[in-house]
Amino acid sequence: MAALDPDHYPVDPWRLVEARFEPAAAALGETLFAIGNGYLGMRANSSDGRDAHEHGTFINGLHETWPIRHAEHAYGFAEVGQTIVNAPDAKVIRLYVDDEPFDPGTAEFLEFEHSLDFRTGISRRAVVWRTPGGKRVRVVGTRMVSFVERHLAIITFEVELLDDAAPVTLSSQILNRQDAGDAGAGAPGTVDPRKAERLRERVLVPDGRWQEDGFSALGYRVANSGMTVAAMAHHTIETSDPIETEHSIGPDLAKDVFHIQAQPRSVIRLTKLVSYHTGSRAPVRELVDRCRRTIERAMHAGVDAEERRQREWLAAFWERSDVRVEHDDRLQQAIRWNLLQLAQASARADGLGIAAKGVTGSGYSGHYFWDGEIYALPFLVFTDPDAARNALRMRVRMLPAARRRARMLNEDGALFPWRSINGEEASAYYAAGTAQYHINADITYTIAKYVRATGDLQFLASGGIDVAVETARLWATLGFWRSSEAGDSFHIHGVTGPDEYTTVVNDNLFTNVMARFNLRYAARALDQLEREQPSDFALAVERLGIAPAEPEEWLRIADAIAIPYSEQLGVHPQDSHFLEREVWDLANTPEDRHPLLLHYHPLVIYRFQVLKQADVVLALLLQGQHFTAEQKRADFDYYDPLTTGDSTLSAVVQAIVAAEIGYQDLALEYLRNAVYVDLEDRHGNTADGVHVASVGGVWMALVN
Amino acid sequence: MAALDPDHYPVDPWRLVEARFEPAAAALGETLFAIGNGYLGMRANSSDGRDAHEHGTFINGLHETWPIRHAEHAYGFAEVGQTIVNAPDAKVIRLYVDDEPFDPGTAEFLEFEHSLDFRTGISRRAVVWRTPGGKRVRVVGTRMVSFVERHLAIITFEVELLDDAAPVTLSSQILNRQDAGDAGAGAPGTVDPRKAERLRERVLVPDGRWQEDGFSALGYRVANSGMTVAAMAHHTIETSDPIETEHSIGPDLAKDVFHIQAQPRSVIRLTKLVSYHTGSRAPVRELVDRCRRTIERAMHAGVDAEERRQREWLAAFWERSDVRVEHDDRLQQAIRWNLLQLAQASARADGLGIAAKGVTGSGYSGHYFWDGEIYALPFLVFTDPDAARNALRMRVRMLPAARRRARMLNEDGALFPWRSINGEEASAYYAAGTAQYHINADITYTIAKYVRATGDLQFLASGGIDVAVETARLWATLGFWRSSEAGDSFHIHGVTGPDEYTTVVNDNLFTNVMARFNLRYAARALDQLEREQPSDFALAVERLGIAPAEPEEWLRIADAIAIPYSEQLGVHPQDSHFLEREVWDLANTPEDRHPLLLHYHPLVIYRFQVLKQADVVLALLLQGQHFTAEQKRADFDYYDPLTTGDSTLSAVVQAIVAAEIGYQDLALEYLRNAVYVDLEDRHGNTADGVHVASVGGVWMALVN
Repeated sequence: MAALDPDHYPVDPWRLVEARFEPAAAALGETLFAIGNGYLGMRANSSDGRDAHEHGTFINGLHETWPIRHAEHAYGFAEVGQTIVNAPDAKVIRLYVDDEPFDPGTAEFLEFEHSLDFRTGISRRAVVWRTPGGKRVRVVGTRMVSFVERHLAIITFEVELLDDAAPVTLSSQILNRQDAGDAGAGAPGTVDPRKAERLRERVLVPDGRWQEDGFSALGYRVANSGMTVAAMAHHTIETSDPIETEHSIGPDLAKDVFHIQAQPRSVIRLTKLVSYHTGSRAPVRELVDRCRRTIERAMHAGVDAEERRQREWLAAFWERSDVRVEHDDRLQQAIRWNLLQLAQASARADGLGIAAKGVTGSGYSGHYFWDGEIYALPFLVFTDPDAARNALRMRVRMLPAARRRARMLNEDGALFPWRSINGEEASAYYAAGTAQYHINADITYTIAKYVRATGDLQFLASGGIDVAVETARLWATLGFWRSSEAGDSFHIHGVTGPDEYTTVVNDNLFTNVMARFNLRYAARALDQLEREQPSDFALAVERLGIAPAEPEEWLRIADAIAIPYSEQLGVHPQDSHFLEREVWDLANTPEDRHPLLLHYHPLVIYRFQVLKQADVVLALLLQGQHFTAEQKRADFDYYDPLTTGDSTLSAVVQAIVAAEIGYQDLALEYLRNAVYVDLEDRHGNTADGVHVASVGGVWMALVN
Repeated sequence: MAALDPDHYPVDPWRLVEARFEPAAAALGETLFAIGNGYLGMRANSSDGRDAHEHGTFINGLHETWPIRHAEHAYGFAEVGQTIVNAPDAKVIRLYVDDEPFDPGTAEFLEFEHSLDFRTGISRRAVVWRTPGGKRVRVVGTRMVSFVERHLAIITFEVELLDDAAPVTLSSQILNRQDAGDAGAGAPGTVDPRKAERLRERVLVPDGRWQEDGFSALGYRVANSGMTVAAMAHHTIETSDPIETEHSIGPDLAKDVFHIQAQPRSVIRLTKLVSYHTGSRAPVRELVDRCRRTIERAMHAGVDAEERRQREWLAAFWERSDVRVEHDDRLQQAIRWNLLQLAQASARADGLGIAAKGVTGSGYSGHYFWDGEIYALPFLVFTDPDAARNALRMRVRMLPAARRRARMLNEDGALFPWRSINGEEASAYYAAGTAQYHINADITYTIAKYVRATGDLQFLASGGIDVAVETARLWATLGFWRSSEAGDSFHIHGVTGPDEYTTVVNDNLFTNVMARFNLRYAARALDQLEREQPSDFALAVERLGIAPAEPEEWLRIADAIAIPYSEQLGVHPQDSHFLEREVWDLANTPEDRHPLLLHYHPLVIYRFQVLKQADVVLALLLQGQHFTAEQKRADFDYYDPLTTGDSTLSAVVQAIVAAEIGYQDLALEYLRNAVYVDLEDRHGNTADGVHVASVGGVWMALVN
């Protein structure tokens, strides 16, 4: 958790730079220098393709399914496991000089620079390598995943002998790492639930390979999910020296090998155009055709043109998204790195969700959580509404599965899965999964935010209203009425709020506050449609079978929903019995017992007042209009010392609320913490991928 | 759930009899007619060894271990799965007449009777079979597992041709069903958590086989647990007809085959003496020797003598245990069957526990739960104190593991596993497993009951006090003090009581009442030792490091422990927030949605006031001295309508308490329900084994 060492990571407001090679930082670097566009992501694995924390090429939503085997099963437990697949790796370009391999793990570097340019989205590794035979060789590799052409990546590789002539071999590959290589995800026996599930059977079933005219392509069917994927590469080599080429292709490996009798000071330049296409059922053959069209279009335009379009795209991105800091280039660099991550996680998701790690790693199995809606989407709503709309359409598409899930849980309406890729609940631990019913309200909250910001009633009419209504219906059946002298009140029992260190509670404040919003918004959105688009309203009423009394009932529930409040302490309890718990002694909990979830049984943690992440305080942020300034301060004062920060979702929320109630220094401290979560690896697991929710929160904190 | 059909199951006060073969009742019959002695059990599979619900030969405690794979792991989750092993099956005697197999599943029976004699403990199948060729053959098989020689079983098999001569073949086998046969346990994909875990790898690793002098033996090492087992058979055949024999033995099958040129009206009689020995690490060779000694001793004594000793043992058993009913032979028969099950489950456990299904099936994986202490042991305490002491020693032996488990759960003292064979927690679902801390108090409660009934202070001194003290220590750290105007009170949060339809609650009444007993008893037992056996007291104080103030603190806690009570309703809430839950609408829950646990997600069930099994009412029974008659009646009236009876543990408890508060008719109804739980298969799963806790409860209800 040391601050970035400027000798190792020099300050540069527009680039992240690593100025020397340090093996201990290699795993972290794979994530920090990863590139992606929300659809396709490439971890910054070195080009030799050997040692890595996790070799990773990820395509948003490309997943395998498997039956979840519960150690003790019960009715309604999640059944369909889903894990993002490691797509065929086209990053590999092996270099041999005098038949000696270029292996960064052991190589002697005379010069080294690894960089990620925020204005080009291009990562670049430039080194001077002294071979075991003593020859100096300049090696410069660049990678770009296009924001403009989402199926396109461009890899360049330059080799220049600085001393004597030597035979140089470049072996460019597409390798199925999922099955034939070391995917590197999750050590066996790991107990960290935040890692990806490891698949044991063959996942990518070869379904066609093809090599001609300088093109190589591998196609696969994903064994159980039935998805299809094709990866294609085309090579252009420029050299003035004599060259021989050979090509080979097998089920899991395509090779294009170039043997050059290289002369000193003669630059060999390899350009590898790469394309990926995926389908839910499309024939692989068709995907291969699409890959070829993508590459041929890029060949026709030229690499320079593609790079120019990328720069233009990013110029526009920074124009609308940049947050400038005066007199602190380090912070400026860090903030821009965070903002770029949001683009890389979401820009071209094009109707897919935003995974917890974006496309930078397999952490959390590539699943979509509420992180997308609550932490990442606000950025898109205000900087790229089309992308926001596309991401929300993912939830509209999940609605049939969410309706089935609600039935399984004995409720009306729809219940969105706590974690999922394909719409089926994949959380194997219901207490901190399925029980987080609040995801329903989180989704509708973000739909409301989008519609309010854009006025896009067409989205509302074409599916948004369905989500709002069906989520409202779930709350109406999940809760129940209770009468007392003080009047009727509506209660929601047996749910878990955002804080996963207290689970399955009654009247969780966050849940009830957000459910109240959900219920009111469903009614309001129907009103709005009726007024502004009556024919769409009529269609929705028919499609959803809405009785006239239904919205009234939602409003009645919303007005009566229980909002726990302790007159004695003057704070909102996190749930109706939260204050009866003992207070965890955080001050006397050794550093090496954090995060608590890895060192204490859930039963132990759940007995105490201790928070994994902001819960009441997040309600203060998202529904601030319902709380007075005094309440906000009292609640913040109460919960802040109980919050461990074991989740990266906390700091940004606490930063914003702290600022609002006037704790400027604390706000800045939390903000800095959030800004550097990944860059300084403050949770020790950035190697598994970027914390996308945290980077989204950084933007929220900056604009708040 | 129909009452026993007297044509199918004739009334007989001293035998259970099945008078005709009905394939639909075959699975149930395998359990009802099973024999055992608490160490060795044989399900009543037919001798041909083909179709079965579950072929089963069980040896108490003979288990395999395996790493529990949690779909989502967390710190402290149970790690060592344990499953009872299907011991090599020596029940198989295949009969061929004219080379036609005797297959009860398809055979034509001219006569049929299957019986279990309560005075001999011998099961008997006597049939007249018409072969496909039209010949009538009388076949009579008997089986006995000796209560006197716990390693001995005696199987006899008689064949008599009633018409013409024919070649008769008898193939007597020992078959490793666990690996080479169809163990029949648990269909793949089953969601019933009450079934046994199915093991996938080879479990019994062949470790020696041996066949000579009419003996056949197979020896195995259990792959992961390292236990060893040997099974041996010796055959004597009596016939006046020409006979040829052949013998063969392989890793998983030993065969002794007899070919007889049988004449009509000439009885062929095969006597198969069977012995099993097991060890935790003993060499298989040694076990084989022990088997041989067991069999040779029986050969020397003779089968008649062994059967006589068995009758004598059972005569003594009935002398001390029988409960007589006037004028109702059906009920008498049912009660005696229940009482016999208690003997069969426990008589010769000799230091092992009493599994939930005794030795009659692999249901619940052969695990020991609290059932042993709370439901089965009272019978032993009052009818066979040595057996009770032996069963309690199992808990003393588990103490080191229970101490480790307490540390893992962040507490002092010891925490006994909710379910286990080897002492390690094996419950993979903590909410209805590990969270049932009350097992600690249940064990100490039964130790107290045993010591009070027997005055056996030597048991207390040699381990009983250790259990009492260490369980008390757990309560002292698990709970916490709270101050209020009303004074200091002690609370226990985040535990589950006996009722598994409400989990992880605060101040569960049963738990707190039993913990109070536990704390006081630990102090009282120390007092008693100090007074009556001062040197043992001194040793215990030193061994356990007991500070003088410690027992005082236990008593202070016991006096202050929270006992939830609702002045408004005049009842004891099951836990501090139980009454805030909605009441489940049992009246409108369709019959086919029972048991609830198989038709509703736990989150749904947990939200409601609905009971799987008696909880407060069980506290009224076990700690009745702390409740007034009015309280008992009010609590019973409140909880009885909320109790589903989805567990077989309820009816007996409700019967006793109903009787106590004067609801005689209801008490009788519950008692009848309990008496017939298995005989009428009222829970639909008796085929998986006898509900030992229920049969124990029947005895409690009868003597109360």
